Amino acid sequence: MSVIPIPTPPIPLLDQGAMQEARARMDVLTKPLGSLGRLERLAVHVAGITGCPRPRLPRKSIIIMAGDHGVAARGVSAYPTAVTEQMVRSFARGTAAINVLGRQVGARITVVDVGVAATLPASVNVVKRKVAHGTADLSVGPAMTRDQAARAIGVGMDIAADEAARGMDVVCLGEMGIGNSTAASALVAAVTGRPPAEVTGRGTGIDDRALERKIAVVQAALAVNGAHLDNPFDTLAALGGLEIAALVGVAIEAAARRTVVVLDGFIATAAAMMAVEMDPAVRPFLVAAHRSVEPGHQAALAHLDLEPLLALDLRLGEGTGAALALPVLDAALALLDEMATFAEAGVSTANDTDATALARPVSRSSPP
Amino acid sequence: MSVIPIPTPPIPLLDQGAMQEARARMDVLTKPLGSLGRLERLAVHVAGITGCPRPRLPRKSIIIMAGDHGVAARGVSAYPTAVTEQMVRSFARGTAAINVLGRQVGARITVVDVGVAATLPASVNVVKRKVAHGTADLSVGPAMTRDQAARAIGVGMDIAADEAARGMDVVCLGEMGIGNSTAASALVAAVTGRPPAEVTGRGTGIDDRALERKIAVVQAALAVNGAHLDNPFDTLAALGGLEIAALVGVAIEAAARRTVVVLDGFIATAAAMMAVEMDPAVRPFLVAAHRSVEPGHQAALAHLDLEPLLALDLRLGEGTGAALALPVLDAALALLDEMATFAEAGVSTANDTDATALARPVSRSSPP
Repeated sequence: MSVIPIPTPPIPLLDQGAMQEARARMDVLTKPLGSLGRLERLAVHVAGITGCPRPRLPRKSIIIMAGDHGVAARGVSAYPTAVTEQMVRSFARGTAAINVLGRQVGARITVVDVGVAATLPASVNVVKRKVAHGTADLSVGPAMTRDQAARAIGVGMDIAADEAARGMDVVCLGEMGIGNSTAASALVAAVTGRPPAEVTGRGTGIDDRALERKIAVVQAALAVNGAHLDNPFDTLAALGGLEIAALVGVAIEAAARRTVVVLDGFIATAAAMMAVEMDPAVRPFLVAAHRSVEPGHQAALAHLDLEPLLALDLRLGEGTGAALALPVLDAALALLDEMATFAEAGVSTANDTDATALARPVSRSSPP
Repeated sequence: MSVIPIPTPPIPLLDQGAMQEARARMDVLTKPLGSLGRLERLAVHVAGITGCPRPRLPRKSIIIMAGDHGVAARGVSAYPTAVTEQMVRSFARGTAAINVLGRQVGARITVVDVGVAATLPASVNVVKRKVAHGTADLSVGPAMTRDQAARAIGVGMDIAADEAARGMDVVCLGEMGIGNSTAASALVAAVTGRPPAEVTGRGTGIDDRALERKIAVVQAALAVNGAHLDNPFDTLAALGGLEIAALVGVAIEAAARRTVVVLDGFIATAAAMMAVEMDPAVRPFLVAAHRSVEPGHQAALAHLDLEPLLALDLRLGEGTGAALALPVLDAALALLDEMATFAEAGVSTANDTDATALARPVSRSSPP
């Protein structure tokens, strides 16, 4: 029985048959065995997720959950709460980093106000599913009520279902929320048991004094919410954020639909970690896109046993790292799908007297 | 005066003005300062290469130089020499890994026979500029004569000039040649002074005994060619390959034309290293795409002081790693070009009462 107090869909296993078929094909493509490295494992993994032995992911969705954090008032961020709204407006205008990358990779972007402190006017073109005007300060008590956390998860499930109805082969988890690296650090500390100082970083760029303060805030959050940390749902409610809870819902719903879930950076990975804590069946559907510079990100990735595809020193969020990984995913799947096999190459070239030479590595024990 | 015994074009410096303009723009885009990590430095670098403060690289060229190696007869490769021709035919048919990736990233592919041992019939659609039917065995004497090496460099310069005439904003250095990781190891050992055992790897997948033999072959090559290793051109002729020399020519000609030169793996990086040894002005025009599993690749990258963008455990060559890096390059340049600045965002949103909040990080010294 799920610890989540709302109904969640059952999540299937990876399709072992599709993976075996993909692996078998990968091994007879015209290249040295294993020479495509991580791309080979990635393509086979996606075959297992989708249940298709030669999968492609043309329908790409980036879901950006936005929410504010009461803890931002503690001076834990380089930016004021107002910037969450500013950036949501940027997303709606199409001028932010994630909009540029979404266009580059052919992904559509859905921006959801699940907890922005400000009230966005109707003219701002985002999906309005506000559960609350930001969270409470997690350093003095639970960030969310259980009801708020459950509703935010429900919003994520709804949005993923809506996107699935439009066609969604792969979803990138993106987020915006000033203060949310503090929440993510608290979640990672609570789940992994690592000390706050090890999993708390500079977020968008705070100085040494602010970092000390941020670490103290995370310590206070763990202490004051100690009674709520005995199960993952209550941990999420106490230390998380509305956008983080919504991403939990996206991950669960997407996994249930055999959709590839591409994690962005620290916040999105913390959300995925909470989803896996609540339902371990989510884990096989995750692909880690990039390694951010936040120390807590590494801890969350290690806890999930995930190895990111890229390491470009990003620390922006929005889904930018996830979007950058989509061409790598597409490349891996195109190689699996479009490369010739030894047999095909042999058939197609009557002039080749030695068409299968690639299939037979020389294994001389001494020089000829 | 160049050590290369044929005329080579003068190579300009990076355009500092364009770089300053790009850096200035990058710093006022609507994101925390530096939050795009390596993408920011990459975009500024390309501004310097191209001389354009907001560069884009729509015209992408992958040049695959193919040549055989006499040393392949020493059992240093998992595959026989015949596979070079096989793979060149695959490239011409469009069914190899690099063809798939070229289509994915929108790059055209030029395959050049500069030294394949077999005689390719007219029906195989590759550029035929054969200098010799493969090199001599570098472990018993010079792989190439000085004349052959110079002619192969000239072929590379010609091909790059031809591609430039078709329009070329970025060029990926690709190669095919059974035995060429032995040549690359010998070049890297000669130039960096590292012991052969440190820079010699398993190539396409040889076993322990073959690896020992390969290391011994590299040691023999250095010893027997000792008299030729006092300058980079003669080193290239003695230890390199026709396709490696041709890539040297491509790098020089492309740099002279302010074209971004994207290195593939070990072989292409060894070629770029030789180009830089002969003309250090080439160095600023290089972008390292990926880190292959070959130990010598790391040594060559360190010698060039280059940090690759990707690390996906590839060991295929053909230009595949370089092609995979092109979407990262495009993304970096799209961000520089298309993101809104704070000023633009402020102008475009009359409703924003705090449109420049992002530009003013909070720097509280104590919680409010």
